[in-house]
Amino acid sequence: MTLPLYHTHARPGDLVQLLSTSHRFFLVRLTPDAVLHTHKGVIQHNDLIGLPWGSQVYSHLGASFYLLRPSLADLLKETRRNTQIMFPKDIGFVLVSLSIGPGQTVLEAGTGSGALTTALAFAVGPQGRVISYERRGEMQRLARKNLRRVGLDDRVTFKLRDIALGFDETDVDALFLDVPNPEDYIAQARAALKTGGFFGSLVPTTNQVSRLVVALQEHHFAFIEVCEVLLRYYKPVPERLRPTDRMVAHTGYLIFARPVVPAPPPAEQETAVPPSSQP
Amino acid sequence: MTLPLYHTHARPGDLVQLLSTSHRFFLVRLTPDAVLHTHKGVIQHNDLIGLPWGSQVYSHLGASFYLLRPSLADLLKETRRNTQIMFPKDIGFVLVSLSIGPGQTVLEAGTGSGALTTALAFAVGPQGRVISYERRGEMQRLARKNLRRVGLDDRVTFKLRDIALGFDETDVDALFLDVPNPEDYIAQARAALKTGGFFGSLVPTTNQVSRLVVALQEHHFAFIEVCEVLLRYYKPVPERLRPTDRMVAHTGYLIFARPVVPAPPPAEQETAVPPSSQP
Amino acid sequence: MTLPLYHTHARPGDLVQLLSTSHRFFLVRLTPDAVLHTHKGVIQHNDLIGLPWGSQVYSHLGASFYLLRPSLADLLKETRRNTQIMFPKDIGFVLVSLSIGPGQTVLEAGTGSGALTTALAFAVGPQGRVISYERRGEMQRLARKNLRRVGLDDRVTFKLRDIALGFDETDVDALFLDVPNPEDYIAQARAALKTGGFFGSLVPTTNQVSRLVVALQEHHFAFIEVCEVLLRYYKPVPERLRPTDRMVAHTGYLIFARPVVPAPPPAEQETAVPPSSQP
Amino acid sequence: MTLPLYHTHARPGDLVQLLSTSHRFFLVRLTPDAVLHTHKGVIQHNDLIGLPWGSQVYSHLGASFYLLRPSLADLLKETRRNTQIMFPKDIGFVLVSLSIGPGQTVLEAGTGSGALTTALAFAVGPQGRVISYERRGEMQRLARKNLRRVGLDDRVTFKLRDIALGFDETDVDALFLDVPNPEDYIAQARAALKTGGFFGSLVPTTNQVSRLVVALQEHHFAFIEVCEVLLRYYKPVPERLRPTDRMVAHTGYLIFARPVVPAPPPAEQETAVPPSSQP
Repeated sequence: MTLPLYHTHARPGDLVQLLSTSHRFFLVRLTPDAVLHTHKGVIQHNDLIGLPWGSQVYSHLGASFYLLRPSLADLLKETRRNTQIMFPKDIGFVLVSLSIGPGQTVLEAGTGSGALTTALAFAVGPQGRVISYERRGEMQRLARKNLRRVGLDDRVTFKLRDIALGFDETDVDALFLDVPNPEDYIAQARAALKTGGFFGSLVPTTNQVSRLVVALQEHHFAFIEVCEVLLRYYKPVPERLRPTDRMVAHTGYLIFARPVVPAPPPAEQETAVPPSSQP
Repeated sequence: MTLPLYHTHARPGDLVQLLSTSHRFFLVRLTPDAVLHTHKGVIQHNDLIGLPWGSQVYSHLGASFYLLRPSLADLLKETRRNTQIMFPKDIGFVLVSLSIGPGQTVLEAGTGSGALTTALAFAVGPQGRVISYERRGEMQRLARKNLRRVGLDDRVTFKLRDIALGFDETDVDALFLDVPNPEDYIAQARAALKTGGFFGSLVPTTNQVSRLVVALQEHHFAFIEVCEVLLRYYKPVPERLRPTDRMVAHTGYLIFARPVVPAPPPAEQETAVPPSSQP
Repeated sequence: MTLPLYHTHARPGDLVQLLSTSHRFFLVRLTPDAVLHTHKGVIQHNDLIGLPWGSQVYSHLGASFYLLRPSLADLLKETRRNTQIMFPKDIGFVLVSLSIGPGQTVLEAGTGSGALTTALAFAVGPQGRVISYERRGEMQRLARKNLRRVGLDDRVTFKLRDIALGFDETDVDALFLDVPNPEDYIAQARAALKTGGFFGSLVPTTNQVSRLVVALQEHHFAFIEVCEVLLRYYKPVPERLRPTDRMVAHTGYLIFARPVVPAPPPAEQETAVPPSSQP
Repeated sequence: MTLPLYHTHARPGDLVQLLSTSHRFFLVRLTPDAVLHTHKGVIQHNDLIGLPWGSQVYSHLGASFYLLRPSLADLLKETRRNTQIMFPKDIGFVLVSLSIGPGQTVLEAGTGSGALTTALAFAVGPQGRVISYERRGEMQRLARKNLRRVGLDDRVTFKLRDIALGFDETDVDALFLDVPNPEDYIAQARAALKTGGFFGSLVPTTNQVSRLVVALQEHHFAFIEVCEVLLRYYKPVPERLRPTDRMVAHTGYLIFARPVVPAPPPAEQETAVPPSSQP
């Protein structure tokens, strides 16, 4: 099953969110005769099927909800977790920086709860492929369940493996390491990536950043970039516009790099004749 | 022509970047017998064709470059412009928040120089469609040229039109307004979007944010979010890790919202019987 | 009574903080035979008097505290409030930007809970003077109590007055407005300040900033600056250095300006002879 | 000579700034018959003496300037330097966090170009004292000149010394280390500070932060805080309010700590009788 394109009205089998005005939401797959129990009353799936997206609906206790299709950001935030998961602000920048798009093959380790896995699977589309390594069976089961829930599991190959043993794949377009010690797996990452491919990682501490940069330099990665993405929300009140009082101050540092193939400079090469002077 | 998946070695027709160690780069499409003239010497395309991605090459003056495929972020930064263009940090968050993915139909106005258009076309893939409105012929020509250059123009329908006259399309999944006065086109945006669809916009000033939020509220958009994305780079020196001295402090405020269909509360509806009590 | 310079050991009458390892603290004035009741047990003042600053002490339940003199930042954070108070991060920048120092006369409205008043009184020293206006008697009483508690009340003149009626003072060095609608009192502020003096204000919303800047321009204030100060804490763990998870995202926008005396350009003045060519 | 309190009109001997509308400014001490040469023409000091502060004046070429007294922040920015100097945003927070005020004795190393020295001398007032260590004679001469220029040199004792040899002083209230390797001088800092005193430092890299925190912990400093202060300016245009395009992204990490005197818990002390149960 894949994530369907959505029609104008909710249909059986659609993954929907019921969003209260306090921005709390429920993520459910519409099933004839099923019932959603919320803390504010009960809603019948049958009453939702056939409604236009965006419809306001009420629980039997009169609590108001809107029927919406979840955005990718919503799916990510809703990932059931027993680990820290990546945030949409970081994932969006990773997708653009690693150039993740339809039809690609992407490698990831560790799977964790599957938030990044979800975004990668969404972005590579039905013709693409995500291969996700994890060494803890329990985590993999949770991630598999999360991916199945959002209908993206058939784009993902889950592998239960310590990546110290290496990846099975070679010549992949992009690889992301979300593990506590990425610096220990750079040789393995390099062996799996195309030369010139896209490497990314996220680590929470500055000490890890330093160690990872050292390892990347030792393994001939170039164009190393280290950055952090900060997201600041505003209260959407036109006459009193101002940022929210508090914000997430830190999720992690993002590191990007490209495996390159150094070559000796021309003076040391067989011929010193400038290319442009050749016949 | 569509953006090809890349092989392990550079082939004729590939869009490549030649990246110097100072991070300056050239974006060229490999063409047999063509010649690239850089400020640091000449490079023959023929010497690049057939090399593995990531190879280090030298100009006839001995200047070093790496042969890489450009990331989406690179393509965006390289957009030829005569307007302010959106930054990868904002575009990544827009893609995730508007849930832009393979196979979708997305509406955009104005086209501008085509940076966001490029990202949308990349993300919707060969089965998707981007429809981009612009009222200035000159801008449209530039954007069309930029899209053609990166091989994504066949996923885009360019329309020369003042959107005050409305959009031709209805029931689109997502719509992004990057115009100076988005508050003036919210009725038109609502008519084009599916109810429950994804609306986004970017404006540089707080005054525009206030006006846009008012207009969205008036046209029954809910779940309005206002935020800004900040990107902070670090100098990737392991023993002296620290942020760069200066950063981009502001590009714009992002606004997201969903067109909804309000309904009267149950007490005012035909039947006051709670749904869950029905047989 | 003024804030004393501190000796090496705690003496009767000293204002001290007892700081637990969880950074929670108690602010008390040492009084022979007095007793401090904490949620973690009882401490006798007599056991503190005579100890060197920084001493570790224990409650009768064995809970650990350190005996410290409070910093100005500690006093500010500890201000008893029934309003939002200014933060040390903002106050520090205000002191430096308004050039508040020993011996000066500074005007402030409104007094509020007295946090900024405390900092101003601290900075102007025993030879300086803070004149603080407030129109709510209840607030003034609280502020007066807060200032007395930290021993700085004798440097402050409290006035109960709506500043719409103007300030009594003229030719003051610096004036700070911390009121919801500073734009309504700019004429009054200008009348109280020396020309060329230092004006500052803090407002929480962007709309207020816009209105205040308009009013300042209308009343011949120049060199208007608008800024915000962000403070980001790190977890002080050497091997896992990283920012805290969350931070204060917004307290307010700071506005600074100088009242100036415009003069007609020389061409319109009596003599067009360049000053330097005169005998 | 000390920094005078300013009158309502400029007098001979006053330190003044002439500020152009582009915010560029000149800092001069008014001297009868002296002449200021700017890139936009000449101004006679005699034409300034006696003018009210804030007056608009013109050079002989008709360029407009305002006659203002410099703020502390202005003096700091104007420090002549051949080292990186501390920024007002950091200095303001240091003053408040270290509780620097009138009449205190403060220790600093290294002197550098004297920016922080200037702020400390300003804040401690004529009854206070700043003792500033520097091991490079050339730097000390520059700082001394900078302090003399702003009339604060008589509050400062300059010492030419490598602080590895220790400080002469003991029992000082506050000490700030602005040296590349503060972790190497924590024993010396502790010996100079009152127990319970205020320690501060600024370092640019995360690696230095980690090393400094280790050293502080080893030398019984507690309540260690690590933070960074970010300052973001806005363009003060009421109808188009927005942050400036670029900002300073990093100056340094601030570290604060207090030297404490650990004591064995009561169970290990001579008497285990709870203090409160004593007669």
